[in-house]
Amino acid sequence: MERPERVILEEKGAAGSLRHTAVSHIGFSVPDVGAAEKFYTRVLGLVRHAEIDNGVRLGWGTGHHVVDLIQGEKKLAYYGFEVRDENGIAGIRERLLAAGHKVMDLDASFITSPVGGVEGVSVVDPDGTEIHFHSQVQRQGENAADTGRRPIKFQHTTLGSGDVARMVSFYTEVIGFRISDQLHDGNFCWLRSDKDHHTLAVVFVGKGGDIDHYSYDLAEWEDFKAWCDRLTELDVPVAWGPGRHGPGNNLFVFFDDPAGNHIELSAEMEKFYDDRVTYVPRRWEPTPVSVNLWGGQLPSWRKVSG
Amino acid sequence: MERPERVILEEKGAAGSLRHTAVSHIGFSVPDVGAAEKFYTRVLGLVRHAEIDNGVRLGWGTGHHVVDLIQGEKKLAYYGFEVRDENGIAGIRERLLAAGHKVMDLDASFITSPVGGVEGVSVVDPDGTEIHFHSQVQRQGENAADTGRRPIKFQHTTLGSGDVARMVSFYTEVIGFRISDQLHDGNFCWLRSDKDHHTLAVVFVGKGGDIDHYSYDLAEWEDFKAWCDRLTELDVPVAWGPGRHGPGNNLFVFFDDPAGNHIELSAEMEKFYDDRVTYVPRRWEPTPVSVNLWGGQLPSWRKVSG
Amino acid sequence: MERPERVILEEKGAAGSLRHTAVSHIGFSVPDVGAAEKFYTRVLGLVRHAEIDNGVRLGWGTGHHVVDLIQGEKKLAYYGFEVRDENGIAGIRERLLAAGHKVMDLDASFITSPVGGVEGVSVVDPDGTEIHFHSQVQRQGENAADTGRRPIKFQHTTLGSGDVARMVSFYTEVIGFRISDQLHDGNFCWLRSDKDHHTLAVVFVGKGGDIDHYSYDLAEWEDFKAWCDRLTELDVPVAWGPGRHGPGNNLFVFFDDPAGNHIELSAEMEKFYDDRVTYVPRRWEPTPVSVNLWGGQLPSWRKVSG
Amino acid sequence: MERPERVILEEKGAAGSLRHTAVSHIGFSVPDVGAAEKFYTRVLGLVRHAEIDNGVRLGWGTGHHVVDLIQGEKKLAYYGFEVRDENGIAGIRERLLAAGHKVMDLDASFITSPVGGVEGVSVVDPDGTEIHFHSQVQRQGENAADTGRRPIKFQHTTLGSGDVARMVSFYTEVIGFRISDQLHDGNFCWLRSDKDHHTLAVVFVGKGGDIDHYSYDLAEWEDFKAWCDRLTELDVPVAWGPGRHGPGNNLFVFFDDPAGNHIELSAEMEKFYDDRVTYVPRRWEPTPVSVNLWGGQLPSWRKVSG
Amino acid sequence: MERPERVILEEKGAAGSLRHTAVSHIGFSVPDVGAAEKFYTRVLGLVRHAEIDNGVRLGWGTGHHVVDLIQGEKKLAYYGFEVRDENGIAGIRERLLAAGHKVMDLDASFITSPVGGVEGVSVVDPDGTEIHFHSQVQRQGENAADTGRRPIKFQHTTLGSGDVARMVSFYTEVIGFRISDQLHDGNFCWLRSDKDHHTLAVVFVGKGGDIDHYSYDLAEWEDFKAWCDRLTELDVPVAWGPGRHGPGNNLFVFFDDPAGNHIELSAEMEKFYDDRVTYVPRRWEPTPVSVNLWGGQLPSWRKVSG
Amino acid sequence: MERPERVILEEKGAAGSLRHTAVSHIGFSVPDVGAAEKFYTRVLGLVRHAEIDNGVRLGWGTGHHVVDLIQGEKKLAYYGFEVRDENGIAGIRERLLAAGHKVMDLDASFITSPVGGVEGVSVVDPDGTEIHFHSQVQRQGENAADTGRRPIKFQHTTLGSGDVARMVSFYTEVIGFRISDQLHDGNFCWLRSDKDHHTLAVVFVGKGGDIDHYSYDLAEWEDFKAWCDRLTELDVPVAWGPGRHGPGNNLFVFFDDPAGNHIELSAEMEKFYDDRVTYVPRRWEPTPVSVNLWGGQLPSWRKVSG
Repeated sequence: MERPERVILEEKGAAGSLRHTAVSHIGFSVPDVGAAEKFYTRVLGLVRHAEIDNGVRLGWGTGHHVVDLIQGEKKLAYYGFEVRDENGIAGIRERLLAAGHKVMDLDASFITSPVGGVEGVSVVDPDGTEIHFHSQVQRQGENAADTGRRPIKFQHTTLGSGDVARMVSFYTEVIGFRISDQLHDGNFCWLRSDKDHHTLAVVFVGKGGDIDHYSYDLAEWEDFKAWCDRLTELDVPVAWGPGRHGPGNNLFVFFDDPAGNHIELSAEMEKFYDDRVTYVPRRWEPTPVSVNLWGGQLPSWRKVSG
Repeated sequence: MERPERVILEEKGAAGSLRHTAVSHIGFSVPDVGAAEKFYTRVLGLVRHAEIDNGVRLGWGTGHHVVDLIQGEKKLAYYGFEVRDENGIAGIRERLLAAGHKVMDLDASFITSPVGGVEGVSVVDPDGTEIHFHSQVQRQGENAADTGRRPIKFQHTTLGSGDVARMVSFYTEVIGFRISDQLHDGNFCWLRSDKDHHTLAVVFVGKGGDIDHYSYDLAEWEDFKAWCDRLTELDVPVAWGPGRHGPGNNLFVFFDDPAGNHIELSAEMEKFYDDRVTYVPRRWEPTPVSVNLWGGQLPSWRKVSG
Repeated sequence: MERPERVILEEKGAAGSLRHTAVSHIGFSVPDVGAAEKFYTRVLGLVRHAEIDNGVRLGWGTGHHVVDLIQGEKKLAYYGFEVRDENGIAGIRERLLAAGHKVMDLDASFITSPVGGVEGVSVVDPDGTEIHFHSQVQRQGENAADTGRRPIKFQHTTLGSGDVARMVSFYTEVIGFRISDQLHDGNFCWLRSDKDHHTLAVVFVGKGGDIDHYSYDLAEWEDFKAWCDRLTELDVPVAWGPGRHGPGNNLFVFFDDPAGNHIELSAEMEKFYDDRVTYVPRRWEPTPVSVNLWGGQLPSWRKVSG
Repeated sequence: MERPERVILEEKGAAGSLRHTAVSHIGFSVPDVGAAEKFYTRVLGLVRHAEIDNGVRLGWGTGHHVVDLIQGEKKLAYYGFEVRDENGIAGIRERLLAAGHKVMDLDASFITSPVGGVEGVSVVDPDGTEIHFHSQVQRQGENAADTGRRPIKFQHTTLGSGDVARMVSFYTEVIGFRISDQLHDGNFCWLRSDKDHHTLAVVFVGKGGDIDHYSYDLAEWEDFKAWCDRLTELDVPVAWGPGRHGPGNNLFVFFDDPAGNHIELSAEMEKFYDDRVTYVPRRWEPTPVSVNLWGGQLPSWRKVSG
Repeated sequence: MERPERVILEEKGAAGSLRHTAVSHIGFSVPDVGAAEKFYTRVLGLVRHAEIDNGVRLGWGTGHHVVDLIQGEKKLAYYGFEVRDENGIAGIRERLLAAGHKVMDLDASFITSPVGGVEGVSVVDPDGTEIHFHSQVQRQGENAADTGRRPIKFQHTTLGSGDVARMVSFYTEVIGFRISDQLHDGNFCWLRSDKDHHTLAVVFVGKGGDIDHYSYDLAEWEDFKAWCDRLTELDVPVAWGPGRHGPGNNLFVFFDDPAGNHIELSAEMEKFYDDRVTYVPRRWEPTPVSVNLWGGQLPSWRKVSG
Repeated sequence: MERPERVILEEKGAAGSLRHTAVSHIGFSVPDVGAAEKFYTRVLGLVRHAEIDNGVRLGWGTGHHVVDLIQGEKKLAYYGFEVRDENGIAGIRERLLAAGHKVMDLDASFITSPVGGVEGVSVVDPDGTEIHFHSQVQRQGENAADTGRRPIKFQHTTLGSGDVARMVSFYTEVIGFRISDQLHDGNFCWLRSDKDHHTLAVVFVGKGGDIDHYSYDLAEWEDFKAWCDRLTELDVPVAWGPGRHGPGNNLFVFFDDPAGNHIELSAEMEKFYDDRVTYVPRRWEPTPVSVNLWGGQLPSWRKVSG
């Protein structure tokens, strides 16, 4: 796998337009919907909200849904963001059109449990995956749980890509995200759209169209022991961690779903206060101790040096 | 604002008749129901249980409702108590009639998720606000949540009043509450109706008809950091605290809803065991260190020393 | 009450066939269903899922139900297990038939919130009580709660019996459970069917047909203070503990429901990993310090030293 | 054992003169000093500060000592208080002389690690035991420890007595303590001399001259599990608890030293703020649920209901 | 008090030379050494290590000392840093001489409990206060304590100054610190010399020669309740907080020593990893919500918005 | 490296004679004593207790010492146990002599801070390393610390060996330890001498004469985050973990000292109660998920599956 030349990723254009935007749902194409549903309900505590075409829609039992599982070969079907910025959807639509992208109205069936007016757009990202941007939804389900047993929210998506710079340019200049951190070699970039260090990240994996991993929040470190013990009880092996990331400073542990999607559990992510402080994106050395501050062990699927 | 002469508030009459009675719901008239609903659902984790006349009814998603938001100018519309004392409602009705108050049957629509028989009375308090007393309701929704993210219950109402002694006399002699604490100058009185130090308080603010503040319980001190960080993330500034009250010994932090209602989050409130110990109400010096044991900072709206 | 001769209980036959099987529901015949329902909803946070013949069905609000309360004299009506082992139900049926037991198909109404196919058998245990074995059900409701306020799951049933050896033989040789621990005198035996030290126990009490006690899990020691304080607030006295059991190493506290059923709250139970380690059942001295490692106080209803 | 008539214990005379006074050391006569020293160093983490006549002096390794162990039959040899009140020692001396007591200068060897001037008096209490009152000493050793492994301070002494009213009268009217709580029958009284609910208590046991028990503070509930497990590891059985007292609201657990002295570990004791609030002593029913709010189990040596 | 024009503080020269350097001790001139010693030993748990000229030297009981108290009018006498960087002292000496400063060998009596070779220099800072830089010392005393009762280390010094830019230039260009954060108006600057966000800060207060405040670390948020309660017990009022700073992201609470020095207790300070990431100093708006992220209350002595 | 045939290790002879015996100190020969001392004092919080021949003696500052560092090539110099069993030392001496071992009186200089009589023997283990067995010592220093910053005790030694069966036979049949767990292939064996699952372990590494690793206890899981963050702050990388061992069920994390000794931090180790329960040693599959229950990552130096 050939890696690109060193690239300094820059914030330009609309960067910073979005400050109250966060991931809301994600759709996976998986080879065995039944096995995946059993996993997500038993292990992560999700519940079936609805049946959808060729699949099922899962969520926290109340409020907006979280995961769609659709029969097919393993890939990312689509990923969504809730935009609570004032005139946020309108601004995204306008900037996308100005940049020559094709914009569709988002099918209202994706906006479950709305609060106030319902509004949404759909666009294809530079790697060819469908993105959903939509207005405010109910999210109380996120926290209605024992934090030792169920994640408290879906927190970020990390996309694999064949062209990190192109994806970052799209998300900063057109959509309105900002860069929080990047690796010096330009192969990994963490983007924010609210006070969290990142709600989206992009990493070079040779080609686009699937996630590298995606992540749920736990409430605190104490929960990591409960979760590792619980995964063991459920015969799900830990793949990486516990550890602490450099970019975002968040605690992490990783394991896989039956389709092979890497799932992260995370806590203590760094916050950004763009309303009161001026930041310049940091650049990290592409070494294992950047990705895990505590020590150099990497999971089997990740290379950060060389 | 002229303050009354020093008054020693006394327990007489029916004081102590109620020992299993607690706040259950509260109705606010607010100028912007939509903004208030967005706040209560996003910040406090309440969900819409129903639409009501000119407003919405919010609760914990299951069991009895908590907050009614009704279109109008900012004021307290009504406040309610669940009475689990044996023959509690009948006793209240009887004592109110004996004292010459006009008593109405409570509209059953206010008693959502009853357990066992449904019974309720409505009366107007000496300051002119409607009170609801009703029989047992389902309250499991109170605790079905991550305590770091959602309050665990609605715990007390503090009424502003122009005549504290009159209100206290009504609640102790007629309704059956007891006095736990008071300020020496008679301008603040904390009343109990179960094992909690207070489920109701009355403070002199010049005139009646609105709350001074109202309060939700958190589970423990650890949650105060999670809440202050979360309020910051949601752009809601802390108005007072964290601190610890003298009367009740409870930890506290305050912030405002969009209508300007002061909301308290509280924990570690002192308990009273009237079935096994004889108490005499305490009297506190009306100084800032009584209201915050840790130090003298007061919020902008509170004066305790004349 | 005469006690049997010393008996060494042994694992034979099918022992170890079940490794993903756990208690799922329990049915009590109680003299006052209304009082019992008020207790279980207010104290344990259960909610009414349905009305059933002569009674009510309670659960965590979502997923499989937990407790059936049926009008009648106090006794155990039936108890159930969720079997997630591959071909688990088929194997149980086959072994029961081979051993000459009468096997019925379980009425599907007992399998609420199934996941995947619905399958179940019913059999009468050697002491004459009906047992339910059924396929996978939704159990997310188990953990959707503040662990300080509501147990996180129904964890084990301890049967009183007049013939411990016969019951243990039935559960190990025919059904497929394993022995984790026993008292040296054979009067108490703890059986496992998944990674928990026990999901079922049997104790000699002179005759069978009722529980000795049954148990819910709390998340951690911290919750024991919250629960003891909360029980006190609700006028429910603690009957035994807090303490720590020898067999299972679990923390415990006991109290009674209105029908006189002993309820245990438990945490930190020892785990067994039969897929990677070979165990031999341990044998404990029948002394108070075996039953409570911390010290010799026993509850009024328990005798462990002959 | 005959118990006295019902007595209402009252605060008179000098009551409230002392507000910054706390227990400092205690001297036991024990039959086996070697065994007692092994116990106190291994179990409680005390270290030998010095050899004294016929015994050893133990403390936290730095600052003022805590326990003197003196060869002899089991009894209380003396008990001491650090008086930080301005002119505290002078006031006590003056009031004792005015009341006709014989007052001695305290031997300076008892005031180890003084801060500022050294001053002390010794007097015999109405039950015949020697009391030490002395000026400020270093107490940093109290908290220099892992709170899960070592108590954080010596907190109170509870004297057994044959005449509770006489002892209470001495301590309130002459010495200057206040009454925080009492049992209705006058057989138990809790006295304060700083912000803690009690630093001294007196209970009717038929005759005076020995402790009923004495108590060390733990930092929090979490430590009670660590301590019960650790006592078990060290073959020291728990005699009572964990539980929560009514008077003082403190969590507790009890065990014995080799001489048979009952030792309490305690946390969360109620605080009193006499500088800003007026209290009236409470009176508790002499029932088990007063002494343990959680439930009625009492230790073998205690009777609270006549 | 006139404030300077807006100044952007820049890193130049030696900035970043020091990466293993931290505050070690501080010397205060105070009007009443006896009162100050009583305060620091009783409230902060320090112990007297030695008597010095006109004063006392306090520390954690073992290892390097922390606070010198010297009789005189209130001011900062000197402040010290432990330099663990390789050739750190030599480099500082060389750069100071090259920049024309007068450098003295540090009196070895200031380097208590050294580890390895003893080396130190003394210089006068641009505001006229003596600074000590010295080689490695024993610091185990820092952590040998219950974190709820005693701070775990002396963490930073914040100097008041009349010329912030001059002080920052001295510390970055000559000494070798780096800038972590600053206010946009140049009136406050936070400097780092190891992985902590700051070990030194400088704030404009009109003139130099004294601290603005200085700070000790607590282990975690849980300790803030224990400390606020403990300060209340010791009659020391909280002056500001609890809250969370923007620059450094650390939790804080403030109170005063008897000489009027503001003392901060702090936890959760942001870490910097200069060995693996490139940072650009952030610039904060000079508003109250920068200094306390949770809300706008400021202490009486602080103005951040012009 | 050739591994031995499968061996079932058995308990015979004196096994179980010791029940109150635990590791006390360990002596390392290291190439750079100065670097090792800096590491142990800064990272682990040990302090220098004394200088010894060619080295230094470190401990917790009070009580018995823990680590001797002696100039030389990296190897284990000796390791010691405190024997608190009645007549423990005499019994060991007698059994060693009966088995034909050469027994020396232990040099009294190794028994620092004794309690009661001083007694000790020295013997060479089958792999040629010197062992110390000695009578009771002061160990209060073990717990006098913030558990988040300093381990709370030295807990076990794991010896590398070329003949595990021979070492186990020596320790069980002659010395009096018991087997708690072993790998099925006989290459790893965990031995107990008090209530802890193991105080000594032996693992096949090809040849004897050095440790495989040694271990300190932390108080709880919460401390693992504090320690990983603290190691990172001190530039010490984590080599393995955090994870949870199968045998012993203890949480763990590993890192190296400057001489290359592997150091483990551990918590939650399983307890054995030989006074009340009969155990049979368990046998684990020699697979990665036995050594880390949470998942299969192993450190670079360990192979468990042939």
